[in-house]
Amino acid sequence: MIDYIRDGQEIYRQSFAIIRAEANLAAIPADLEKLAVRVIHACGMVDVVDALRFSPGAGAAGRAALAAGAPILCDARMVAEGITRARLPADNRVICTLNDPEVPALARELGNTRSAVALEHWREHLEGSVVVIGNAPTALFYLLEMLDAGAPKPALILGFPVGFVGAAESKDMLAADSRGVPYVIVRGRRGGSAMAAAAVNALATEVE
Amino acid sequence: MIDYIRDGQEIYRQSFAIIRAEANLAAIPADLEKLAVRVIHACGMVDVVDALRFSPGAGAAGRAALAAGAPILCDARMVAEGITRARLPADNRVICTLNDPEVPALARELGNTRSAVALEHWREHLEGSVVVIGNAPTALFYLLEMLDAGAPKPALILGFPVGFVGAAESKDMLAADSRGVPYVIVRGRRGGSAMAAAAVNALATEVE
Repeated sequence: MIDYIRDGQEIYRQSFAIIRAEANLAAIPADLEKLAVRVIHACGMVDVVDALRFSPGAGAAGRAALAAGAPILCDARMVAEGITRARLPADNRVICTLNDPEVPALARELGNTRSAVALEHWREHLEGSVVVIGNAPTALFYLLEMLDAGAPKPALILGFPVGFVGAAESKDMLAADSRGVPYVIVRGRRGGSAMAAAAVNALATEVE
Repeated sequence: MIDYIRDGQEIYRQSFAIIRAEANLAAIPADLEKLAVRVIHACGMVDVVDALRFSPGAGAAGRAALAAGAPILCDARMVAEGITRARLPADNRVICTLNDPEVPALARELGNTRSAVALEHWREHLEGSVVVIGNAPTALFYLLEMLDAGAPKPALILGFPVGFVGAAESKDMLAADSRGVPYVIVRGRRGGSAMAAAAVNALATEVE
């Protein structure tokens, strides 16, 4: 037998204790403290907290929306899979339209990625929703274009696209002018579905 | 309209070009070059390549197993979601047993995490499989215990658990003695389902 901790709750407890001992959470407001800890937990890097940017009250806005039953709109199936349903306060719907059958044809028609045009199928759900982008920069750019064209406003945008082309730019564009929507981003190339889902899981309940 | 690249193939092309310009791939053997590039792509960090460790021929072993129809055994649903089915060379099965209905009771019985004991349901598939651990250190520890107890050997272990308790230790333990099984790991706390799935996607086909 190998010597390791086999108790899931104890692993969580020690993990969060290590994160709170090592990470500099001084700049994080109280309503985002657990979100910051969970995002760090998801990626294994305490310094990612230094790249978090957010609008005032973003955490409170997200919590209130979820408690009121807001749907959670995800750009990728991995994000949707990472959201722990048992933590959601109002049996909230978790929606990912990327694999909708019309999306490939729509992508050709609109000349954009499938990840971006899949947001066309979000319109009826957007008002007051929690948007979670954990993969595609083009999805975040497209969301900003939809908002500029008058689409209904989400309650919160969690902006965690990852990668080398457009990720940093799309998140900086959101933070520079979030079109009046509360937001949380991680600046730069880092991001991804695990961090994005962790952000939702942190806002869903106070339970760690 | 915002100015951004809307062509998915062009985004991939530029992303991989940036990675190959910035990352130090000198220590990566030819059969793992595309894997290294895709793992970097999945996390947005070129320096993650410096933490990759592998046994000789691991990439070739994984490619051969997938071409021969090996099942892909995943510790987490997010990993399974991240594997691009269209890339798989032999319509390979992608198996995740974490949500099998017997797993919670088995976890209580065996005194281990659900992620670990879910591997009990891998036994019939283990021989010659490609194992992908992208979340739970306990799953990797448990796999080593199963191998020590005589379980059939996979063709390849992709070890990418993430986090602060056991992640670094479990991967170092695998690299120190992989029980005769070829492996690829990323050392340290970093890892996760996106990197793990990217590793599979890279081995599945030569197409970028």
